[in-house]
Amino acid sequence: MGGSTGLASRQVILVARPTGIAQAEHFAVRTGSARAPDDGELLIRNRFLSVEPAMRGWIADAGNYADPVAIGSVMRALAAGEVVASNAAGYAPGDRVAGWFGWQDYATVRPDAVVRKVMQDDLPLSLSLGVLGINGVTALLALTRIGQPAPGETVLVSTAAGAVGSAVGQIAKILGCRAVGIAGGAAKARSCIEDFGYDAAIDYRADGLGEAIAHHCPDGVHVYFDNVAGRISDTVMPLLANRARVVVCGTASIADWSVWPSGPRVERHLLVKRARMEGFVIFDHADAYQAAVDQLATWVRDGRLRYREDILDGIESAPDALAGLYRGENAGKRIIQLHDTE
Amino acid sequence: MGGSTGLASRQVILVARPTGIAQAEHFAVRTGSARAPDDGELLIRNRFLSVEPAMRGWIADAGNYADPVAIGSVMRALAAGEVVASNAAGYAPGDRVAGWFGWQDYATVRPDAVVRKVMQDDLPLSLSLGVLGINGVTALLALTRIGQPAPGETVLVSTAAGAVGSAVGQIAKILGCRAVGIAGGAAKARSCIEDFGYDAAIDYRADGLGEAIAHHCPDGVHVYFDNVAGRISDTVMPLLANRARVVVCGTASIADWSVWPSGPRVERHLLVKRARMEGFVIFDHADAYQAAVDQLATWVRDGRLRYREDILDGIESAPDALAGLYRGENAGKRIIQLHDTE
Repeated sequence: MGGSTGLASRQVILVARPTGIAQAEHFAVRTGSARAPDDGELLIRNRFLSVEPAMRGWIADAGNYADPVAIGSVMRALAAGEVVASNAAGYAPGDRVAGWFGWQDYATVRPDAVVRKVMQDDLPLSLSLGVLGINGVTALLALTRIGQPAPGETVLVSTAAGAVGSAVGQIAKILGCRAVGIAGGAAKARSCIEDFGYDAAIDYRADGLGEAIAHHCPDGVHVYFDNVAGRISDTVMPLLANRARVVVCGTASIADWSVWPSGPRVERHLLVKRARMEGFVIFDHADAYQAAVDQLATWVRDGRLRYREDILDGIESAPDALAGLYRGENAGKRIIQLHDTE
Repeated sequence: MGGSTGLASRQVILVARPTGIAQAEHFAVRTGSARAPDDGELLIRNRFLSVEPAMRGWIADAGNYADPVAIGSVMRALAAGEVVASNAAGYAPGDRVAGWFGWQDYATVRPDAVVRKVMQDDLPLSLSLGVLGINGVTALLALTRIGQPAPGETVLVSTAAGAVGSAVGQIAKILGCRAVGIAGGAAKARSCIEDFGYDAAIDYRADGLGEAIAHHCPDGVHVYFDNVAGRISDTVMPLLANRARVVVCGTASIADWSVWPSGPRVERHLLVKRARMEGFVIFDHADAYQAAVDQLATWVRDGRLRYREDILDGIESAPDALAGLYRGENAGKRIIQLHDTE
C-alpha cells in the first residue's frame, strides 16, 4: 500500500442501506487523506462526480448486475478529473480521464477503473459524464443495438428530457425516425420539443396518457425506449406496433423491488404483436464504447446533439443528490462539481 | 359461385362466442353440401382436422393476430386431405394437401388456403398437422430464430410433452443443448424423458417448482421456450441466465384476457439479466416453412425426432376437442380423423 499523499480528500460514504431510494441520511461526508499510488496505480483529482438513477440498484441488496456497494465504503460512481500522479504505463499527470473514481476528491486506482481518456479537449470535461459518457453511449447503443429503428418508424421515449432520453430522441431524429417523448410535467414536455427536437411530447402527469400516445403514434409504437417501467410502460404496451422493440433501459418509476411489484402481464402483447422486449446494460458493450463516444462528439460539435446539465455545487450536495433525482427536481444530467479544499 | 357437388359435408359451426375457452356448446355440427369449385378453386376432401391451443385466440373477440372467427361460420382450422377436383393450376385430383380447410368434410378453396402440398408419401398424412406442420415448424423456427440456443446451453420448455414442446426439446438436444421440460403430472413428465429424450423433466403440479428448475438448470436458464405464461413463467423469470432468451410462443395457462391479468413485473429481470423476451407467430415465417418441413421430415425418418398423436374419432368429437385440450387430457398432438359418411 502506498503511503498518504498528505492531500485531504473528502469522501461520501454509504453508512446505511435503504430499502427504497437512498436519502441524504444514508450517506456521510468524511475527510480522509489520499493514498499515494503504488506501482501500476494512478492518483486522480476528481473535478466532476456523476449522479445516476442506476445508483439505486448499485446500493440495493437485491439481485443486480454488480455487487452492492458495501456499507462504510465510498459511494461507487463515475467521475471525471485529471491525473495528478501516475505509476501506470500510458498515463501522465494532466491527462483528463473519466471512470470509476467514486464520490470523493481524490481516487487512487488501477487503470482498469478508467473508462476512457478524455481526448475531446475542445469540449467541457463534464460531458464525459453525460452526453459523451454513460448516458449518451447508452442512448446510442441501446437504441441502435436493441431498438434497431428503421427510418420512418416511431420511437417513443420515457424520461424523454432526461440525460439518456434526450439523447435517444435526438439520435432517433438523426436516424430518420419520428420521435415522441414522455416526460413529467409541462415544462419538461416543452423542453423535449424546444430543446431536443422531439416531434411531439406528452406530460404523463396530465390525464389521458394512453389517448395522447395513440394520437401522437398513429402507426403504433415501433420502438419504445423505456427508462421507467410501471404505469407508463403498462400504458404503452397495448399500443405497440407489430414487430415492435421495447428497450428496457431503466425502471426508474419503481422505487422498491424488495417486495416484487405486479403489473399487467406483457406476454400476450409480445405474442400478438410479435414484439421484443430486451434489457440493456452498458457494461456489456465495452467493445463499442469508444466509437460511440467519437460519433456522439461529432454530433455535439455539429450542433445536432444538444444536452442539458444540472450541476450541483460542491461535494456537500452529494448525499441528497440521488434522492433529488428520484424527486424529479433535476433538468438535465445531474453532476456534482468539486472545488479545491484549500 | 359453383353449384352443389351433391356431396354431403358435415361442418362444425361456431354458434356462440365464449369469454374463456370454447366449450362443446359453443359449436354445432351441421350437414350441408360441398360447393363445386369455380375457376381457380379446388375441392378438397379433409381426412384429418387439427385442434390447436391457438384456436382460443382465433375465437376470442379481443385483439389478436387475425380477425376472430365469425359466429355462424365454419370453425377456422388447419386440416389435411386430398384434392377431389381442381380448377386451379398446379393441383390435380389425388394431390395430398394441408392448409386452412376448416373443421368440415369438404372444403372449396382458392390455392392461397393451401399451406403446402404434402410430398412425404412415405410418412402419414396426419403428420402434416403436427410434427411436419404448424407445431414442428413452430418448434424449429421459434427455437432457432428467437431462442438462438448455443451448444451447451440449457433450454427449458413448458408444455414440454405437447405437440410443440416435445419437438422443441428434441431439437434442442439435436443442437447440442441440455433440455429440461416442464409438464403437468408425473406421466407427462416421464414421457418427456422416456419418449422425447429430455435430460430432466419437472411436474409443475408437484411442490417446489422453483427449486426443481434451479436444481435442473444449475447454470441458469439460457433459453426459456414458453407455451403457457402465468405462474410457471413467473417462477422461471428469476432463474434466467444472463443474456437469456424467452420465446413467447403461447399463453395456454391463461384462459381469459378480457379482464387483463396481472403478474410479477418482468422489466427488472430483463434489465438485470440483459435478457430478451419475444413473441413468435408462425404466420410471419412463411419464407422458411418449406425448408423447415424438409429438415423435420429428415429427422423423423432418421428416428431423431419422435412424436405422439392423440387422434379423436369422427367429426362429432370436434366440438369438445378444444376444451379437452385445455383440460390437459390429450397426450400428444390432438387430431380429429374423419370417416366417409356413406
